[in-house]
Amino acid sequence: MKRLYNFGAGPAVLPEEVLKKASKDLISYSDTGMGISEISHRSEIFKNILNEAKNDIKELMGLGEDFEILFLQGGASTVFDLIPMNFLHKSDFASFIDTGRWTKRAMDEAKFFAKVQMLASSEKVGYREIPDFDIEKINPKSKYLYICTNNTIYGTRFIKEKLPKSDLPLIGDMSSHILSETYPYKDFDLFFASTQKNLGPSGLTIVGVKKSFLQTAKDNLPAMLSYKFMAEKNSLYNTPPTFNIYFLGQVLKWIKENDGLEAIEKLNKEKAKILYEYIDNSNLFRNEVEKEDRSLMNVVFTSGNKNLDYKFIKNSEARGLLNLQGHRSFGGMRASIYNGMGLKGVKVLVDFMKNFEIKNK
Amino acid sequence: MKRLYNFGAGPAVLPEEVLKKASKDLISYSDTGMGISEISHRSEIFKNILNEAKNDIKELMGLGEDFEILFLQGGASTVFDLIPMNFLHKSDFASFIDTGRWTKRAMDEAKFFAKVQMLASSEKVGYREIPDFDIEKINPKSKYLYICTNNTIYGTRFIKEKLPKSDLPLIGDMSSHILSETYPYKDFDLFFASTQKNLGPSGLTIVGVKKSFLQTAKDNLPAMLSYKFMAEKNSLYNTPPTFNIYFLGQVLKWIKENDGLEAIEKLNKEKAKILYEYIDNSNLFRNEVEKEDRSLMNVVFTSGNKNLDYKFIKNSEARGLLNLQGHRSFGGMRASIYNGMGLKGVKVLVDFMKNFEIKNK
Repeated sequence: MKRLYNFGAGPAVLPEEVLKKASKDLISYSDTGMGISEISHRSEIFKNILNEAKNDIKELMGLGEDFEILFLQGGASTVFDLIPMNFLHKSDFASFIDTGRWTKRAMDEAKFFAKVQMLASSEKVGYREIPDFDIEKINPKSKYLYICTNNTIYGTRFIKEKLPKSDLPLIGDMSSHILSETYPYKDFDLFFASTQKNLGPSGLTIVGVKKSFLQTAKDNLPAMLSYKFMAEKNSLYNTPPTFNIYFLGQVLKWIKENDGLEAIEKLNKEKAKILYEYIDNSNLFRNEVEKEDRSLMNVVFTSGNKNLDYKFIKNSEARGLLNLQGHRSFGGMRASIYNGMGLKGVKVLVDFMKNFEIKNK
Repeated sequence: MKRLYNFGAGPAVLPEEVLKKASKDLISYSDTGMGISEISHRSEIFKNILNEAKNDIKELMGLGEDFEILFLQGGASTVFDLIPMNFLHKSDFASFIDTGRWTKRAMDEAKFFAKVQMLASSEKVGYREIPDFDIEKINPKSKYLYICTNNTIYGTRFIKEKLPKSDLPLIGDMSSHILSETYPYKDFDLFFASTQKNLGPSGLTIVGVKKSFLQTAKDNLPAMLSYKFMAEKNSLYNTPPTFNIYFLGQVLKWIKENDGLEAIEKLNKEKAKILYEYIDNSNLFRNEVEKEDRSLMNVVFTSGNKNLDYKFIKNSEARGLLNLQGHRSFGGMRASIYNGMGLKGVKVLVDFMKNFEIKNK
């Protein structure tokens, strides 16, 4: 079956081995005589799948018993609403480091529930860097500090060394780089990710939360909007998205079988290096992100000429290199090179870029 | 690949033809070179899939341009929270006809947002019937009347003739019988269903809402919790569960290819008739539901003897007839015979029951 190179930002390319297994399991899972999406969420089979996925996340992320892993629905956008709903009272503050559209949205949603402080922003420079911030300036009424650790649209990321350090609970939206590199996941009081970049189809949201932080959440909330309640019920109060949880579990196993997160990180760094090095040495393309803040997952680039960018995108599509257009709010090109994109895809892309440069300089 | 007969209540058996197509499309969809769950929700391909699914729902349900169809996440349990959040103010009432656990839950959640009236209940008779109700007794402050049209646990349903008729907006939870029969869908101001019974894997919730009723919803709500906003955005504000929407679309096409809803209804009535007729004539098994209120989808039965019920469930499993245990709160047996269950499966079940009866009377 025809498979092209898909550089889309999400829903995105998934590991082919996992897709092939899921394709079979959809019709008949193991020796059950039922497809994976036809199996009850109350069955032992499914409970094992869910618990294994939770344990594998913890193992790969280096999290201890002090963490709860929740499997929820509604995407990161729903988390933007539920974090303030669960953790903030009207007179509280939440502090944000603004690194683009998704932190802005999270901030806007938090305003429905409490007050917000923008501790720092890189808007002035088109979000091309992670801004400096002064942790001393955090509002004393703030209940948490919120960041987005990888910014899909602009191709930036918080490298480990730049992560904020304070006594305040730290919350991280990790949707577009979760499990792409070793990272101090355990230093976050709450992290979350929608799955449709590195972990599976869209429709599942992973929330990891420290039990100590979860204890500070409100008690008296509607069932489906309460993180405490969902944790109590092991994400099985109602029917969860079972196929997505199964798929996530398979991706986690695939990471483990491919020598774990360190090996995935090594490969992702190699992929990003090949692409950035070529761009930095190119006379046609450029990447304008502050070098140390560059994303390993989303590589943005442009020729600086709209017409030429358009031609590049059209020609690359014809060559079977798909979805290289930048975000509609940002323009230019973007190659998303998630875990599911192999080294070969990146090499084919760079070869194509080289040829395009020769023909168009 | 091994496929057994799955009588589970949900996630449930799905049409094998659709599973086979989805199994291929998961790896490579049409001539795109990408799997269906790897395609951007912003692509023309996906927008067409979404809009076709909306139109097919409207066509099959006989809905006009006065209806919005929303594709959401969080299951029916989330709808229990979002309906009152969107449509009720603190001093409003909502009226409920209590037909079991799921209406009770919806009522409990509504209490977070407003006041509730229980117009009628069949709890006293173990929810074995649809209760009588006096529409004149609706609280004048009520903003809507809420019912569950098919009750999965107890095997009851509102037949068309018994549906409440009043000037008050009517809301229906149709999760376990949506699109299983022709029904006056257009008489509801809002209906909803999670997909994991008749329409696909879990993880997608369909909400159909009359535009006139939607106009009465609150404006100033957090984005992901606002039905008005989701309608404005055509369910594409954030990344929806794309695989689930694709799968739903395929099930709708499958219904159309199988001569439409009238033909599906005819088959479902035949399946239910075979099963109920045998049970009614059996000396071992009985169904205690008021005859005219019987569900076409969930057929509950018992031998009246716990040990014998247990033996029946064990033996049926060994024979490849799966998940015939009743709901954990209700006991006995239950055969869920959704659209995905063919006539043959029901006949095999009845044959098995006959043999069991002979051996155990």
